[in-house]
Amino acid sequence: MRTVEWDDQKNQVRMIDQRLLPGELAYICLADHHQVANAITDMAVRGAPAIGATAAFGLALAAQISSQTDRSMLLDEIRSAAEVLRAARPTAVNLGWALDRMLQTASQIEGDDDDLRSGLLDEAQIIANEDVEINKRMADYGATLIEPGDKIIHHCNTGALAAVDWGTALGVIRTAHNQNKGIHVFLDETRPRLQGARLSAWKLEQYGIPYDIISDNAAGYLLSGSEVDKVFVGADRVAGNGDVANKIGTYMLALAAKDNDIPFYAVVPTSTIDLSISSGAQIPIEERDPKEVLNIQREGHSLSPEGATARNPAFEVTPHRLITAIVTENGIVEPPYDVNLQKAVKGFS
Amino acid sequence: MRTVEWDDQKNQVRMIDQRLLPGELAYICLADHHQVANAITDMAVRGAPAIGATAAFGLALAAQISSQTDRSMLLDEIRSAAEVLRAARPTAVNLGWALDRMLQTASQIEGDDDDLRSGLLDEAQIIANEDVEINKRMADYGATLIEPGDKIIHHCNTGALAAVDWGTALGVIRTAHNQNKGIHVFLDETRPRLQGARLSAWKLEQYGIPYDIISDNAAGYLLSGSEVDKVFVGADRVAGNGDVANKIGTYMLALAAKDNDIPFYAVVPTSTIDLSISSGAQIPIEERDPKEVLNIQREGHSLSPEGATARNPAFEVTPHRLITAIVTENGIVEPPYDVNLQKAVKGFS
Repeated sequence: MRTVEWDDQKNQVRMIDQRLLPGELAYICLADHHQVANAITDMAVRGAPAIGATAAFGLALAAQISSQTDRSMLLDEIRSAAEVLRAARPTAVNLGWALDRMLQTASQIEGDDDDLRSGLLDEAQIIANEDVEINKRMADYGATLIEPGDKIIHHCNTGALAAVDWGTALGVIRTAHNQNKGIHVFLDETRPRLQGARLSAWKLEQYGIPYDIISDNAAGYLLSGSEVDKVFVGADRVAGNGDVANKIGTYMLALAAKDNDIPFYAVVPTSTIDLSISSGAQIPIEERDPKEVLNIQREGHSLSPEGATARNPAFEVTPHRLITAIVTENGIVEPPYDVNLQKAVKGFS
Repeated sequence: MRTVEWDDQKNQVRMIDQRLLPGELAYICLADHHQVANAITDMAVRGAPAIGATAAFGLALAAQISSQTDRSMLLDEIRSAAEVLRAARPTAVNLGWALDRMLQTASQIEGDDDDLRSGLLDEAQIIANEDVEINKRMADYGATLIEPGDKIIHHCNTGALAAVDWGTALGVIRTAHNQNKGIHVFLDETRPRLQGARLSAWKLEQYGIPYDIISDNAAGYLLSGSEVDKVFVGADRVAGNGDVANKIGTYMLALAAKDNDIPFYAVVPTSTIDLSISSGAQIPIEERDPKEVLNIQREGHSLSPEGATARNPAFEVTPHRLITAIVTENGIVEPPYDVNLQKAVKGFS
């Protein structure tokens, strides 16, 4: 089962509801693009590549359920639906990347409204299928960086659930494990939403990869205590200079890796690289509901005092000076990133 | 009400059970030194100064309830009780400092067994009273570092509950607030035990000091975004070279402060300075029950998968190169720490 896929019988988008994991594996079906946008905003689906594929299916869905018979009017509807989906979350560039690709495809499809519908659904399927292939290629490149017996810190969730399948940083770890490298993983629990303790841990349990969950606070202790060989993270957007926007906590993790000369790798499909911006300062950072920070309970009672307020930035930019290399499906990109990321996007051709 | 005090009527040690805060303010009475040691281990009381005073009362309690009438035999019992208390937690030096002071007092008390009993109880009271005075003097020095309108990150709990009263780093914040400096505090929630979200937030609510709780992960974002002017933390032990052992997460916080040229201050009584060790590498680090990391639940179900394992170092050493100054009751200590900490312990006399 993929994270997100097209349900042929219902003509709907079907996805795993990641909010219920690991306690419950349940699926939700989404009947229009507003529901898809809400599912993205509310983090039923999460992870930059998964969000991209979901948005593509959402746009195909908008076309499928439209009763519009005029090709040009249908195209207008599709463009309008794309803007609804685009606004679902601001930081991950894959969302806009997938929508732009779908809109470009739409403008190039010949024929009538039904050709447009089927063409867009085909394109969404291609994006989803490509994502799996791209993930596996990244994993192969990334696994070359892992030595037998390596101990690896991993932040947030970048596994199969963060993509259509396989995963980015956790995909590298999975491939290295399949190559019998005997690795051990320290999973940052990743407050406030605990994607590491919940989703990444659930996946590593399934794969039989040895791991320990750690509070995010403990990463520096392990890094300075010679207990860690490498750090692998994913990313939601990479700027042209190699600055990486990723889940909150990534920056302090990268600082601690640098302070101890431990290599720090980001694993991203080239669709996550945004050459239109020259630095991370231009990446919009989503600030989410303070309740996500205040929601820890004991016996039904909040563990923070009544009236407590919170700040909740969900992402942050880690400067390129802290990043040893960026792993893509086209190969491993080393500094200087401003030159080499452009080559990577072009496939080093 | 102080964090810990002597109950004259019951002849017991009485303390706030901090495990129940902020939901419930309850007191526990401890009838022998084993119960006191367990309360320290199980974190009913926490914070280096509070642990020191608690241990002193625990030792006075051991003398009080002993039926031994021979002075010399009673002294042996007291020494044995001190070792039980000393083993309760390894990292905070105040525990051993208070016990050593009590034992030295015991050996100097003249008279019979009852003189020994009353002398030790007097000394424990003096230690507790001194702690409050020392905290207030530290707070006065520390508040001179705070400018009007400063925004301050604070880690863990260092408030009145971490001491007998007033607090260390949070004591500085309280004094600056009382001086109408118009400060705002970002409280690291401090996983895994959430002392920041629970105890520090509870105290700031009482004092009316504006604050936001943040997940520990978010400190780097605020520091790099020019949203923070200073960082204040407490400490559990300071080595002769200025290395600071403190709650897990302090090291990455200090790295992020340094990377953004934000001053980073540790606030400690001189009883927390351990000149017997030359660097932080000699400080024992307590690793606690993995359940503390895995204990986050939703509707009674663990949020981590069944079978998940965890690592849980409770403290870590932050190297002195990351610390702008150390605030003590005798004044503000700047580098070079190997010279200036010795002067501070002697009262800069």
